[in-house]
Amino acid sequence: MTTEISVEEMEAARNRTSSLIHNTPIMKSEKIDDKVGAKVLFKCEHLQKTGSFKARGALNSAILAKEQNAKGVIAHSSGNHGQALAWAAQKVGLPCTIVVPKNAPNSKVEGMKEYNADVVFCEPTMSSRESTCAEMAEKLGYYYVDPHNCGSIVFEVLEQAGDEIDSIFLSVGGGGFAASVAFLIGNLRPDIEVYLVEPEEKNLANLLENGIQCASETLNTIADGVRVAHVGSLCEPILKKYCTRTVVSVKEEEIRDALKLIWTRTKQRIEPTAALAFAGVLYHKPDHVKKALVILCGGNVDTDYVIN
Amino acid sequence: MTTEISVEEMEAARNRTSSLIHNTPIMKSEKIDDKVGAKVLFKCEHLQKTGSFKARGALNSAILAKEQNAKGVIAHSSGNHGQALAWAAQKVGLPCTIVVPKNAPNSKVEGMKEYNADVVFCEPTMSSRESTCAEMAEKLGYYYVDPHNCGSIVFEVLEQAGDEIDSIFLSVGGGGFAASVAFLIGNLRPDIEVYLVEPEEKNLANLLENGIQCASETLNTIADGVRVAHVGSLCEPILKKYCTRTVVSVKEEEIRDALKLIWTRTKQRIEPTAALAFAGVLYHKPDHVKKALVILCGGNVDTDYVIN
Repeated sequence: MTTEISVEEMEAARNRTSSLIHNTPIMKSEKIDDKVGAKVLFKCEHLQKTGSFKARGALNSAILAKEQNAKGVIAHSSGNHGQALAWAAQKVGLPCTIVVPKNAPNSKVEGMKEYNADVVFCEPTMSSRESTCAEMAEKLGYYYVDPHNCGSIVFEVLEQAGDEIDSIFLSVGGGGFAASVAFLIGNLRPDIEVYLVEPEEKNLANLLENGIQCASETLNTIADGVRVAHVGSLCEPILKKYCTRTVVSVKEEEIRDALKLIWTRTKQRIEPTAALAFAGVLYHKPDHVKKALVILCGGNVDTDYVIN
Repeated sequence: MTTEISVEEMEAARNRTSSLIHNTPIMKSEKIDDKVGAKVLFKCEHLQKTGSFKARGALNSAILAKEQNAKGVIAHSSGNHGQALAWAAQKVGLPCTIVVPKNAPNSKVEGMKEYNADVVFCEPTMSSRESTCAEMAEKLGYYYVDPHNCGSIVFEVLEQAGDEIDSIFLSVGGGGFAASVAFLIGNLRPDIEVYLVEPEEKNLANLLENGIQCASETLNTIADGVRVAHVGSLCEPILKKYCTRTVVSVKEEEIRDALKLIWTRTKQRIEPTAALAFAGVLYHKPDHVKKALVILCGGNVDTDYVIN
């Protein structure tokens, strides 16, 4: 698979996948607008296939793998990417294996199995995930699939609300999704600002401005989708170019408040990682931002999850 | 306020209120269709103003009260009707008092106060609610507002999906909403069946078929919106005429399963009473039903609510 990034390839990915991907709705809430003091548009990726934006990239990769006559596809994941790839592989008719750290939530593992993926457990460390995955890929002759190329969301957002927004707020973890969005917006609509919202321990601004990495490997945050502390090496220069001044750090209690507000006001059962992006708007929106689009990245949360 | 029921008055109520009421979306889920073995359409009244269908009738009543130069409006409620009337009164510019049993959930009381209602507490019995409310209404000179005339949903449903459905499933409590829907559908589209879904303890079929009332006043059910065991005397003949053969009784664990399925599959944070209607489809759908519309009546559930 290519690791280049170009508007053309992202457009091709969008065209390749659009018939099987939901064009997710945008929601609004007067009460939330009043509270924030600005217009807020919510892009509902928790209503995407498999409950997160990851379905976009996983489907693109599965289709390409199929075209290249792969025997199957494989990934390591404790959550949304694994479910997305399992679904995508089933859609294109390829076998799929997901390497899962053995402490992964049971509901997510069940989700993968429902789409007929073979689940292989490993130790809950990145090195065990990577080595087990590489070994299995070799043995099975499957294509390895990274979370990758979910940029089709940008074309959709611009069609749905391009005239209504001055900014996009998204939660940043490994940086692949953030880099895709920042790159496309930077090329197609440079007047729109892209804000990267992070748990404060990550301190991405210190990396982008001063080259200093976060000391931890893993962040201690309720936003389980962005616990990986470091952004990928391919993403870093893109984020540096487009988002050095637009990193927003939030506290854990701000994520919880944002989650409560969305659950109670919009009745959307999003996951904490999606609330992280909204917390950036709710507590740290710069004054000049008047029309913010918040990407609600996913809704895969256990039925017994409560906000502590 | 009139207690008659007619298609014309329901249409007038719809026209009177439609500019301030959401035309709520209909959602579908392939996974749920597969599980049920039929098409299921969800009418999303949890996305209605104030988080339940009660906003429809409350607004109609508040507008009529305003036209009749009422000094204010008053109701007794532990939940959705109170929030709906508080909102509606604020919209039309009337003062509003809600009599609330003192064991009502705090979040619902807060909801009423947010819309500037005066909240008066009473004992948690129907007689205390009614007497306190009558006393206050007299003293203040306010119009008393029953939950009433939410039938505008039927016109909406027929416009949105009239050609796509063979049945409607709704949760039945005091019977006002059920009677409105059954009456309108019976007059406008008698080919569509209206199913009344109840917690099994209610045994509404025994009333409609044999005239035998449920022995309890209050049902022991997680569906807190339909704990009132008896249907109103004005509703009973309507339900008898249209729904004698279409009462569906469900068990508590079936409500819980239905709630889990909707939370996880659709990411919609509906309340247990809304899940009750879906439980009727999920576990008790007659074989000839192929295209069911389920009314998700509300989404007002505390942030710390868990499915036991």
